[in-house]
Amino acid sequence: MSDLPKYVEVHEEGPRDGLQIEKTFIPTETKVKFIEALSETGLKEMQVTSFVRPDLVPQMADAEEVAARFTPKPGVRYTVLYLNEKGLLRALATKKFHIKGRLSLTASEAFCKRNINKTIQENIDMLPNWIKIFQDNGVPIEGGGIMAAFGCNFEGDVPLDRVMNLIQVFEDLSKAYAFPLQEVSLADTMGWANPEQIKRVIGAVRSRWPDVHFSLHLHDTRGTGLANVYAGLQMGIDTFDACVGGLGGCPFAGHAGASGNVCSEDVVFMCQEMGIETGIDLDKLIDCAKMAEEMVGHPLPGKVMKGGNLRKYREAAALARHA
Amino acid sequence: MSDLPKYVEVHEEGPRDGLQIEKTFIPTETKVKFIEALSETGLKEMQVTSFVRPDLVPQMADAEEVAARFTPKPGVRYTVLYLNEKGLLRALATKKFHIKGRLSLTASEAFCKRNINKTIQENIDMLPNWIKIFQDNGVPIEGGGIMAAFGCNFEGDVPLDRVMNLIQVFEDLSKAYAFPLQEVSLADTMGWANPEQIKRVIGAVRSRWPDVHFSLHLHDTRGTGLANVYAGLQMGIDTFDACVGGLGGCPFAGHAGASGNVCSEDVVFMCQEMGIETGIDLDKLIDCAKMAEEMVGHPLPGKVMKGGNLRKYREAAALARHA
Repeated sequence: MSDLPKYVEVHEEGPRDGLQIEKTFIPTETKVKFIEALSETGLKEMQVTSFVRPDLVPQMADAEEVAARFTPKPGVRYTVLYLNEKGLLRALATKKFHIKGRLSLTASEAFCKRNINKTIQENIDMLPNWIKIFQDNGVPIEGGGIMAAFGCNFEGDVPLDRVMNLIQVFEDLSKAYAFPLQEVSLADTMGWANPEQIKRVIGAVRSRWPDVHFSLHLHDTRGTGLANVYAGLQMGIDTFDACVGGLGGCPFAGHAGASGNVCSEDVVFMCQEMGIETGIDLDKLIDCAKMAEEMVGHPLPGKVMKGGNLRKYREAAALARHA
Repeated sequence: MSDLPKYVEVHEEGPRDGLQIEKTFIPTETKVKFIEALSETGLKEMQVTSFVRPDLVPQMADAEEVAARFTPKPGVRYTVLYLNEKGLLRALATKKFHIKGRLSLTASEAFCKRNINKTIQENIDMLPNWIKIFQDNGVPIEGGGIMAAFGCNFEGDVPLDRVMNLIQVFEDLSKAYAFPLQEVSLADTMGWANPEQIKRVIGAVRSRWPDVHFSLHLHDTRGTGLANVYAGLQMGIDTFDACVGGLGGCPFAGHAGASGNVCSEDVVFMCQEMGIETGIDLDKLIDCAKMAEEMVGHPLPGKVMKGGNLRKYREAAALARHA
């Protein structure tokens, strides 16, 4: 009926994007157990921690220690967040991570100002220096990411043209500095997207850049998260960031308690039910979501962790029929 | 891009389907305030209470009292649930409701047995008597509803053929007893549906019965609720049952705390953002969701009530630009 991808990669961001908002410091050993449990689910990529200022993000103050302690599982790409050269060098020094050379821009002027105290143009002007940093450190540049690509709490709607112009910036830089523009991630940082908008935006960018691999980083701030994933799937998107249990909250939403990232196991469940492979064992992922809930000490918004994997109901029903 | 309806009716079931699972009895006066607040949101149809056995559903023991006390708003259809002739007569006696003559079937043998202690065939055999009851009481028959149409916790997957056969039963009866088959509601009673299945099922039933108006009663037990609504919209469905705040829980899910009905204000929000009219004031509906949360005394799963209506952010952003 529609042209859904046959295989989808869910990139787990629970240990980083999920935990960074949590006020209570989670012991390093607990984080390591969480990362190692996630490693056993079959997922291919996980963001483990951020190398940022410990005074600003105390939850991530143990980044080096986490890096030193966890045992990587072969076949899993472990990634990290860094916001400046110092962070990148800290991450590189651990020799533990798949470091992504990714250029970052923001599609909202107001949010860019608030987040990094720069205009969008000033942010663009910083990119050649980032390219030099990556090249000096032997980090291959994979592409770029655009934050607030679907709207912004501080600026309102974000026009498609602006998103297109920023991707054009990436393309121009890739030509000027001779790196391939393989991957562009579009982030709905504040949960503004609706499914039709996802279709419009993805349709437009995929037509103009058919050779670029687009991925989606979606938030479920207003309940449309999985509908947006479904719209993305319908447009051929096969890579989504997500957090187990729906960890994350949204620091930018107007109301405390707003949902954060789309929930990994709910995404995996929806894929499973539609016959899309993810390579992930849903039951193990649900166990990780329950572990996350225990770890943060408050209920998480994930649904299938409470409603249950339908495969189990199918098996029980089949057994009952043959009893 | 897709052929979405221009106007969608969201039928509010919060006061009935939403509250019946709540263990703490909600005072009649509070229920009346809730119903009257919902009446002011612009919604066109609301299920107010059920006329069922008070010993089995104590929350609905005050059905007559609720009926007597609330002030109906012109233009709103107030409906009720009843499960037998006695309940129907009680509802009729109040002279307060739009009584729907609706035949009910269940697509799962196991659930039918569990729910009404009948086989599907025995349930079918009861329908002529229901038709007589409706005709004797001057209640126009509008059509039918099928529970567990997308799967069942006790039986597993429900084949499409079975759903088709049950609709055929409705059609045969409509010819035999000379009533029009106008409306068929398909219910995902236990939250089994996925968006592609919604498309498949709706595609099949609409092709075979192009003159029947199909509506969806969806649960969000496993997080796919709004994705399923979106799939329904893509297939032209323009009528959805929902509960403010996502009230409802799911008495049949395997795990306590599982989500219930899809959340009315999240559905209305998604429609609003995609340019689909609902006639409903989202801010007023969000206020009702907050009232519901206070009423039941525990957090509800609704998202936009926490994330906030984007219209407010747009207005604030526009003001800031012109400041």
